[in-house]
Amino acid sequence: MKYSFIIFISLLVGPQGVFAQDDDALMIKKIHNQALENGKSFEWLKELCLQNPGRIAGSDAYIGATAFTRKKLASIPGVSSYLQECTANYWKRGSKEIAWMTTNGKKKVPLNVLSLGNSIATPIKGLQAEVIEVQSLDEVERLGKEKIQGKIVFFNRPMDPTYVRTFGAYGGAVDQRVYGASKAAEYGAVAALVRSMTTSQDDHPHTGVMVYKDTLQKIPGVAISTNDANKLSRLLKNGSVSVYLKTDCKSMGSKPAPSVIGEIKGSEFPDEILLVGGHLDSWDVGQGAHDDGAGCVQSMEVLNILQSIGYQPKRTIRCVLFSNEENGLAGGLTYAKISNAKKEFHLAALESDAGGFSPRGFSFESDTSVFKTYYKKVSQWLPLLESYGLQFEMGGSGADISPLKSQKGLLIGLRPDSQRYFDFHHTAVDNIDAVNKRELELGAAAMASLIYLIDKYGIQ
Amino acid sequence: MKYSFIIFISLLVGPQGVFAQDDDALMIKKIHNQALENGKSFEWLKELCLQNPGRIAGSDAYIGATAFTRKKLASIPGVSSYLQECTANYWKRGSKEIAWMTTNGKKKVPLNVLSLGNSIATPIKGLQAEVIEVQSLDEVERLGKEKIQGKIVFFNRPMDPTYVRTFGAYGGAVDQRVYGASKAAEYGAVAALVRSMTTSQDDHPHTGVMVYKDTLQKIPGVAISTNDANKLSRLLKNGSVSVYLKTDCKSMGSKPAPSVIGEIKGSEFPDEILLVGGHLDSWDVGQGAHDDGAGCVQSMEVLNILQSIGYQPKRTIRCVLFSNEENGLAGGLTYAKISNAKKEFHLAALESDAGGFSPRGFSFESDTSVFKTYYKKVSQWLPLLESYGLQFEMGGSGADISPLKSQKGLLIGLRPDSQRYFDFHHTAVDNIDAVNKRELELGAAAMASLIYLIDKYGIQ
Repeated sequence: MKYSFIIFISLLVGPQGVFAQDDDALMIKKIHNQALENGKSFEWLKELCLQNPGRIAGSDAYIGATAFTRKKLASIPGVSSYLQECTANYWKRGSKEIAWMTTNGKKKVPLNVLSLGNSIATPIKGLQAEVIEVQSLDEVERLGKEKIQGKIVFFNRPMDPTYVRTFGAYGGAVDQRVYGASKAAEYGAVAALVRSMTTSQDDHPHTGVMVYKDTLQKIPGVAISTNDANKLSRLLKNGSVSVYLKTDCKSMGSKPAPSVIGEIKGSEFPDEILLVGGHLDSWDVGQGAHDDGAGCVQSMEVLNILQSIGYQPKRTIRCVLFSNEENGLAGGLTYAKISNAKKEFHLAALESDAGGFSPRGFSFESDTSVFKTYYKKVSQWLPLLESYGLQFEMGGSGADISPLKSQKGLLIGLRPDSQRYFDFHHTAVDNIDAVNKRELELGAAAMASLIYLIDKYGIQ
Repeated sequence: MKYSFIIFISLLVGPQGVFAQDDDALMIKKIHNQALENGKSFEWLKELCLQNPGRIAGSDAYIGATAFTRKKLASIPGVSSYLQECTANYWKRGSKEIAWMTTNGKKKVPLNVLSLGNSIATPIKGLQAEVIEVQSLDEVERLGKEKIQGKIVFFNRPMDPTYVRTFGAYGGAVDQRVYGASKAAEYGAVAALVRSMTTSQDDHPHTGVMVYKDTLQKIPGVAISTNDANKLSRLLKNGSVSVYLKTDCKSMGSKPAPSVIGEIKGSEFPDEILLVGGHLDSWDVGQGAHDDGAGCVQSMEVLNILQSIGYQPKRTIRCVLFSNEENGLAGGLTYAKISNAKKEFHLAALESDAGGFSPRGFSFESDTSVFKTYYKKVSQWLPLLESYGLQFEMGGSGADISPLKSQKGLLIGLRPDSQRYFDFHHTAVDNIDAVNKRELELGAAAMASLIYLIDKYGIQ
């Protein structure tokens, strides 16, 4: 595209475009201008990613990240910041993970793998066994001990590409990663190899949480890249394949992993809390840029934007950077427990934990007794946000804020475009260079706009 | 984000999600499934980019691209393909472009530059002159000959980041690139240096078309990367800076540069043409992946999808890969001239020329005498497309199809998310690895869905 035929496009949302319909439209434009012209979110994310990559809860990197983000929150005038104590089970990957496959004495073909979070290690010398490919947990049951015993079970059902939003495809495949090893162990397998949870074809294995059943023997669970999963599957069509695995990850026990909090006290209704948040922990590989450094800096930026444009909130606006979302939800559970004990009320909680991509809207949920009232109220504001490409829908919000549901406030999830999320999710390439500055900033501006409206008008 | 709280999201548009509301919803789901599961667009784009990068009209790469795309079109059952003769003025960049800046005998600092399209070369030994920074064409006029004569005029007004859609910001800044050299020449400047048209801060200069006024002397026009523009501007605040430029680009005269056409004849109304298209030419640097290889393969994919799902169109669906959009619009003008001479009628023409990013909707325009009727009709289909994240709006369509406006059909532009477009536009990094497969495929599916509806129901 060259230079003509393009000027038409942004009249509605360009600098000249608001037409001063009303104060709210002007304020929302001001919020967006602030985010796009003077926003700090990208600069913060870059520092967080480069200084504290691999922020698994309990690690030194995680502790470093709490200090960094608390300092940045404290630098925003009017914000008081503190750490909320929390402990998390710290799982640590070993220094080297080795895997290869071989068919009847032929050459060893190396495989790109990563142990799944919480997995036990292989024996020190590694383990080697014949591989059996399955498409589901059910198939393991159908095959039974006779076929499974002594084997490595290879779960290879791909994420369904026909879902338009990729989170649906993830939800339809991730049971293999979470429960695959347990199910395989039930029938005597020696390890589980799980196709990476991604919509792309590449060489990056994707880690993520897995769960053992206490009653069963524990066997190693390992993710394999989609390219290698395809290779392995092709080989299995022609005969038997054995795989060698060597990992030395382990559980290090309970470690301190505080959540980070910064807030602006409300001037009229300080007891009504509007929470914005993300989770500060990430997996141990990569920089945790999209998952969920992005959500953290966007939440911090909500406070920064409102302060920078001189908006004094009526309600208390609290930014929470939760600990340990990835591996136990200790941060979210601890936060809700303390909040309930203090008899706090979160009128609304908004989480960003779906990547720093172009925002497409918000998803709302709450206790059914109050949902209709809330949703009717927020829906009135849609015309103010539609010109920014935002839509509203009913649906889930975020893992960390979900324990607050019993307080009967409104729970909200930021919904960015989901197409690229699983290219990076839980991998060594979830790095700052995968984040577009403007997309990140627009997400922060969308969050600040909605928080501004809830603060100004309430939702009850 | 881990594994819970995500399944809710895609119920509406997941594989189980259509609820069989009606045939059209099912057909649109089928179109999307085809694009996402078995689509060819990404594979075609990869081949096009790797085999024929830098497809400036008139070049060997352009001719190679016509052969490649025609072959692929011809491989779709039911599609007849041909080349439409066209000639274009072929402008060729020299092998090496050199630039550096220096202040009073200090060290030379190299600059990242690219000659603008159509620019003349510098003298063989290069040229060196003092730089004067301006923010606009008007400022050159205000400064007048006294300040401008003998200087290199440095146009440094950035794209305004507060536009939410980046095309608005481009439209607000690109006059410097197109007319900067002419305006500077009018006041005796020896060259124009233009800040790259991009929303990002990086080291990639962005080329693009510039236009000379016949009545004025021609001086070289050169783009400079945003990082270097900032550096130069900082230095100028402390004193005089001179820049050395050496380029050897030139106009090679008129060359053959055909457009590529493939079509499926309509079964009921063959004389009503529904055009889908993009432009096959690109600038000479980079692979032209987003601009506009993406639009070409998406248009080809519309025919492929409809054929693959067994849909027999009532109207003639014609894919046109236009020549020379970037540097004269010869393809679009020639096509309209021939079409008018044949008394053809394009009931609708849909162009994709804003990058292969996640589709956000369509923009519609036509002759005012017919616009209301058309827009009312298409607006009825919005509920079918909204669940795919698509919106409708009034506005421009595409440069190549704009000469068809006099036929009084409906002109449509695909509107992808615009945040990343100007990170790559007209640069050496507009490459296949900047394209996400699913985003590209969803754009093709959106186009095929709208064409299906127009074909089935008409718009009159």
